[in-house]
Amino acid sequence: MKIDVIISAKDIREEKIIGKTVIVIDMLRATSVITTALNNGCKRVIPVLTVEEAKDISKSSKEPCILGGERNAVKIDGFDFSNSPLDYKENVAKDKVLVMTTSNGTKAINACIKAKNILIGAMLNAKAVAKRAVELNNDLVIVNSGTYGEFSMDDFICGGYIIQCIKDCIQVELTDIAKTAHYIYQCNNDVVEFIKGASHYNRLKELGLEDDLNYCCSKDIINIVPEYERGYIHKGM
Amino acid sequence: MKIDVIISAKDIREEKIIGKTVIVIDMLRATSVITTALNNGCKRVIPVLTVEEAKDISKSSKEPCILGGERNAVKIDGFDFSNSPLDYKENVAKDKVLVMTTSNGTKAINACIKAKNILIGAMLNAKAVAKRAVELNNDLVIVNSGTYGEFSMDDFICGGYIIQCIKDCIQVELTDIAKTAHYIYQCNNDVVEFIKGASHYNRLKELGLEDDLNYCCSKDIINIVPEYERGYIHKGM
Repeated sequence: MKIDVIISAKDIREEKIIGKTVIVIDMLRATSVITTALNNGCKRVIPVLTVEEAKDISKSSKEPCILGGERNAVKIDGFDFSNSPLDYKENVAKDKVLVMTTSNGTKAINACIKAKNILIGAMLNAKAVAKRAVELNNDLVIVNSGTYGEFSMDDFICGGYIIQCIKDCIQVELTDIAKTAHYIYQCNNDVVEFIKGASHYNRLKELGLEDDLNYCCSKDIINIVPEYERGYIHKGM
Repeated sequence: MKIDVIISAKDIREEKIIGKTVIVIDMLRATSVITTALNNGCKRVIPVLTVEEAKDISKSSKEPCILGGERNAVKIDGFDFSNSPLDYKENVAKDKVLVMTTSNGTKAINACIKAKNILIGAMLNAKAVAKRAVELNNDLVIVNSGTYGEFSMDDFICGGYIIQCIKDCIQVELTDIAKTAHYIYQCNNDVVEFIKGASHYNRLKELGLEDDLNYCCSKDIINIVPEYERGYIHKGM
């Protein structure tokens, strides 16, 4: 298996992902939200690009929906919940459809539709998503959502940890950028210490979201692998 | 001073570099060649995109020219020299115009024309180019040429070393990717050990170019700062 890494949603190019397995990461916080909500009984997640689209889908849905997401890391006017994974407890998420739009993660997911399989990864489910990628037995591209089109240290080290989990199972061939992500993880098994330097971490900290940060940095507390297919993210295999 | 890093020639976007100081790096080997040739008395370097363009310029030049460069890391048919910096000794380079075309470095230089200043950097002149960037006192983008449009570990750590040299002089504000490049250098002051994992390093090693690799990894043995202006690279200030 060859593993490559794309460093931000803006850098996704069709020729890099077509026919491959993709793992989309936005650990702070969209893919942590998606993983948490589905683990807490959410029926499916619909990731969309605009606030209007999210509201329209929610209005016209025959199933009970919740609206979640952020702009500039804060809750959107008229939405039910923000982009905090801690919002999506079982009493909120169970049997609901979550329609969400965020600045980075939902963009990255929608930009990957030419991939063969689109898995959703975070620190929370790193081992599980690594295991699923191994089962799919295809070349892999780890897509870091990044922050507003820029490289983000948090997604990069999370990708490095997922690579470590895959290397624990099978032999892999890494591109230079994948080797560097893996190296960063190897030097920083305590990911929080490394992520403390990340601009997005500090933005969330300024907003008082320490609980989110601590939660999103927890390794392997969830065992599901969300997968995106034809517009929906479901709980996966 | 803000410092950002672009990870390959393919990722250069005008809005990221316009009005800024840029340092273009292709340490294996184009910017090591340029730095070495100019240090050995070469009058100027003309970096061009195609073999035909290089031959045309050389034919029509009134000054004595040498043709240098590579495709797939080997010398181009009809060219005088390859992309080995060790080819450009004083007896070859002195008072000549070097017309060169390479797979990555000359592309990256030509893609940066909207920057305010375009400096040419390598391990060989890292301290000197850092000092010049500090003098220019403008926001800086370190442009890694990369390898065939991909991230390259060698250029990344070289950028990290240049950032270290700048940090030794002034306070800087680093983007996440610049922080990561700097971190990689901090963990690997012996850059060769890190670069040994790089795909391009191994390609050059397979071609028997160990002497080039050792030379290109030498820190600060040249004190000039090549600068690109209006189609030419000159020896700088």
